[in-house]
Amino acid sequence: MLTDTIAAIATPAGEGGIAVIRVSGPDSVELSDRIFSFKGKLQDVPTHTVHYGHIVHPSTGERIEEVLVTVMRAPRSFTMEDVVEINCHGGIISVKKVLDLVLEQGVRLAEPGEFTKRAYLNGRIDLTQAEAVIDLIRAKSDRAFKIALKQVEGTLSKQVKVLRHGLVELMAHIEVNIDYPEHDVEELTSNYIQDKCSESIAEVERLLRTAEQGKILREGIVTAIVGRPNVGKSSLLNALAQENKAIVTDIPGTTRDVIEEYVNLNGIPLKLLDTAGLRETEDVVERIGVERSRNALTDADLILLVLNRSEPLHEEEYRLIEEVRDKQSIAVLNKSDLPPTADLSYIKERFPEDRIVMMSVKENEGLDRLGKAIGELFFGGQLESNDMTYVSNVRHIHLLKQALRSLEEGRSAAEQRIPIDMIQIDIRSAWESLGELVGDSVGESLIDQIFSQFCLGK
Amino acid sequence: MLTDTIAAIATPAGEGGIAVIRVSGPDSVELSDRIFSFKGKLQDVPTHTVHYGHIVHPSTGERIEEVLVTVMRAPRSFTMEDVVEINCHGGIISVKKVLDLVLEQGVRLAEPGEFTKRAYLNGRIDLTQAEAVIDLIRAKSDRAFKIALKQVEGTLSKQVKVLRHGLVELMAHIEVNIDYPEHDVEELTSNYIQDKCSESIAEVERLLRTAEQGKILREGIVTAIVGRPNVGKSSLLNALAQENKAIVTDIPGTTRDVIEEYVNLNGIPLKLLDTAGLRETEDVVERIGVERSRNALTDADLILLVLNRSEPLHEEEYRLIEEVRDKQSIAVLNKSDLPPTADLSYIKERFPEDRIVMMSVKENEGLDRLGKAIGELFFGGQLESNDMTYVSNVRHIHLLKQALRSLEEGRSAAEQRIPIDMIQIDIRSAWESLGELVGDSVGESLIDQIFSQFCLGK
Repeated sequence: MLTDTIAAIATPAGEGGIAVIRVSGPDSVELSDRIFSFKGKLQDVPTHTVHYGHIVHPSTGERIEEVLVTVMRAPRSFTMEDVVEINCHGGIISVKKVLDLVLEQGVRLAEPGEFTKRAYLNGRIDLTQAEAVIDLIRAKSDRAFKIALKQVEGTLSKQVKVLRHGLVELMAHIEVNIDYPEHDVEELTSNYIQDKCSESIAEVERLLRTAEQGKILREGIVTAIVGRPNVGKSSLLNALAQENKAIVTDIPGTTRDVIEEYVNLNGIPLKLLDTAGLRETEDVVERIGVERSRNALTDADLILLVLNRSEPLHEEEYRLIEEVRDKQSIAVLNKSDLPPTADLSYIKERFPEDRIVMMSVKENEGLDRLGKAIGELFFGGQLESNDMTYVSNVRHIHLLKQALRSLEEGRSAAEQRIPIDMIQIDIRSAWESLGELVGDSVGESLIDQIFSQFCLGK
Repeated sequence: MLTDTIAAIATPAGEGGIAVIRVSGPDSVELSDRIFSFKGKLQDVPTHTVHYGHIVHPSTGERIEEVLVTVMRAPRSFTMEDVVEINCHGGIISVKKVLDLVLEQGVRLAEPGEFTKRAYLNGRIDLTQAEAVIDLIRAKSDRAFKIALKQVEGTLSKQVKVLRHGLVELMAHIEVNIDYPEHDVEELTSNYIQDKCSESIAEVERLLRTAEQGKILREGIVTAIVGRPNVGKSSLLNALAQENKAIVTDIPGTTRDVIEEYVNLNGIPLKLLDTAGLRETEDVVERIGVERSRNALTDADLILLVLNRSEPLHEEEYRLIEEVRDKQSIAVLNKSDLPPTADLSYIKERFPEDRIVMMSVKENEGLDRLGKAIGELFFGGQLESNDMTYVSNVRHIHLLKQALRSLEEGRSAAEQRIPIDMIQIDIRSAWESLGELVGDSVGESLIDQIFSQFCLGK
C-alpha cells in the first residue's frame, strides 16, 4: 500500500525566498539522484545532510534550477519513510518546473495531507496527533496554536488511552464473569461496573467540557459590532485590528485579507462579521432591516453594541439594547473621554456590570477591559490555564459524546441488573468510539486484542 | 558592517506544510542554540546537517514548536555567512512565534533582499546575479525563468567582464602613450582606439538587441483582445487560460488571481489586458469610445482582433481593422469550423498573411498557429535559441546605452584626432558604466535601492 513514492510542494503557494518540494517513499533517494547533479550521489550520503547542486533534466542535460537537497532516511523522518526535500527558489515557475521533473521520474503527486497520513499509517503519530498538524497550520491565534501543539504532542491521546485502558480492564473483568459465572457474585460485578462506568463518565464529561472553549479558541468568537452611525464602530474595528497588527504586518507579504476577519484581543481570537461593510459605511443601523445585518446578529457568538456615552440614547438604540441584552453581548460605552450624557442607569439596568465596558477608542483606552470582559463572558476568567488539554475537533467531540452515551447506557443497564453480557456490548461500544478517536483499528479482532493484552484468569 | 545577525521568514506567506525561518550572520549558530532543544548543541554539529528538536522559550521552558534545524557554516552558504534554517509548521502563528523568539535573542529582522545583498557584498555573486534572483522568483513563464536562471549563473556578467577587460587593456595602451608619447606614433594609437571602440560597440549593440525581446519575455507581451460582441473573445480568453492551466492548477493553493492576467502560449508570456472586463461582458465594441478600451489599444504591445469568419464584416469591424492594422496586431478569424462568409479578401489586403490566423476556438483548433504567429511577430521565429543571454533588466539596458554613448564619443574623438587623454575619459566612463552593471564600484544607495525591491526573506 505504501510502496509508492509521493511528492508535493510543502511550502505555501506564492512568491518567497525559498520553496520546498518534499518527496517521500522507498524510491525517493534513487529517483532524486536521477535529476540532482552534485559532487556525489544522494544514495551514498549520510542521513540528515544537505547538499548544494542543480536540478538537471536527465535526458537533455538542461539545468532547471539551483537547489539545496536534504536527505532524511527512514525511519528518522516525518513520514518514517526515506524523505528528500528539494529547496529551490520560491517562485511559481521554479517550483512547478522542479515538481514536474520529479513527477516525470515516476513519483506520484501526493494527495492533501498524505505525508501526515503516512506518518500516521507508519505509526509515528496517532490520529489525533495527525489531525492536530492541520490545526497547527491553520491556527489563527496563540491559544489555538498552543491547543494544537499540545495535541500534536499527544496529550489528548494519552488521556483517551488511559480511559481505554480502564475500559479494557473492565471488559476483561466482565469476560471472566461470562466465562466463569461461578467465579464471582453477579451483584458485586454490577456494582463494580457501575463504579467503573461512573469514573469513565466523569472523565469523558470533563473532556467534553473543554470542547466548547476549545472550539471557540480554535475557530474564534464570531463577533458582530453593531450600533448607530458615528458611535465609533469602525474606529473600534481599527483599534482591534491595530492590536492584531503584530500578526499581520510582521509577516512580510501577508495580505490583510488572508486573516482580515480575525483579530486577537488578549489572546482571544475574534472572528469579526462583516468588517468590509463596517469599514465601508457606518450605516449599519440604517440597514438593520436588511437581511444581512439580521443574520450577523443571529450568527454571532458575541455582539458588541457600541454606544456613544456622550450623547443621549436614540430611539434605535433603545431598540438595539432590547434586541441584544439577552444574548452574549457587551455594551461598549465609547467616548468615555467626553462628559457623559447617555442614560447610564438605563443601560446598567439592562446589562450586568461585567458586560458594560467604558472605552475611549479615540484615546486607545479600554481595549484591555474589553478583552477581560470577553474572557470573563466566555471562559469565566479561566483562560489563563495554559496547560489544559482542550478538545477542539468536531470529530472528537462527536466520538466522546458517543462514548458517553454508551457508558451511561452501560451504567444504567448495570443498575437494572441486566445480564452482564448485554452490558459488555455497551462498554465495548464506548471503547470502540474512543479507539476511533485515536485511530486504533477497531472491530473484528476485538476479543483477541483484549486477551492478548491482558492475561485472563489471573 | 556585516557583523550583525539577521533573520526573516524565507518561505511565501500563508498556510502550507512547511515554513522556513532563515538566520544569517556570525552569531546565528550560538543564538539558535539558546532556543533550540535537541540532543546536542548546534555549535558542535558538522556543517550541512539537519537536526530534529523543539524551539523552547529559554526563560519559561515552554515548548514553542516542533522543528527541523539545518546548520550551514560560512563560507558554504547562500550568504557566505553562518546560516541556520529553522523548518517549522507552515502556519501564520507558527512562523510568527518562532521568528519573534529568534528576534528576542538579539537578531535583527532582515530587510527585503538582505540575504541576497549579503551574498553580493560577501562576493559570492555579482550584482547582475543578485538581481536575477528576484527575477527567478517573479518569473511568470518558462522563458522568463530560463533568462533569469542564466543570469543567476552569471552568463551576462561574463560577457560584460570580457568587455570591461578589453576596455582596461585599451586604457592601459592609451596610458602608456600619455606617459611616454614618444613611445608610439599618435596616429597609430588613434586608429587602434577606433578599432577597439568599434569592437566594443558591436558587442554592446548585440547585447542591447536582446533587450527588447528580453524585456518582453520577462514581463509578458501586453495583449488586448478586441472585437464585436459574440465573435468569441471571451472563449479565446478561456482557451488561452486553459493552456495556462498547467501552471495554475498543478500548484495546490495557487489562486487564479495571482497570475490571472498571465497566460503562456508556446512558452511566450502574454499579459492580457482587462480580462475581468472581457469575462464580464462582450460589449467591448460598445464601450470602444470609453477611455479604458482606448487605453487598452494604446498600451498594448499586441492586439488580437477577433472576427467571426462565418458572418459578413460589420461596420464597426471595418473601423477596427483600420485602427489596428498598422499596429502590432493579428487578425484572428474565429469560427473557422463554420462556412466562411466574411470578406476574406478585404482582410487579406489589410493584413500580411502571417498576421492572419484561422481558428475555431470552440473546437480548440488553431491556438498553436496563433502562438507561432505571435512568435514570428515578436521574435522573428528566433525564440528557439534557448542558450541566448538576454538583457532584460531596465537598469542594465540603461547602463549599456550609457556605455554605448561613451564608446561612440570615444571613437568619434579618436577619428577627430582629439588628444588621447581626452579620449581616455570616454573609455573610462564606458568602463565605469559596465562596472556599475555588474556591481563593481557602485554606491551604497544604489545597492540599497536594488535590494529593497526584493521580497523579504531572500
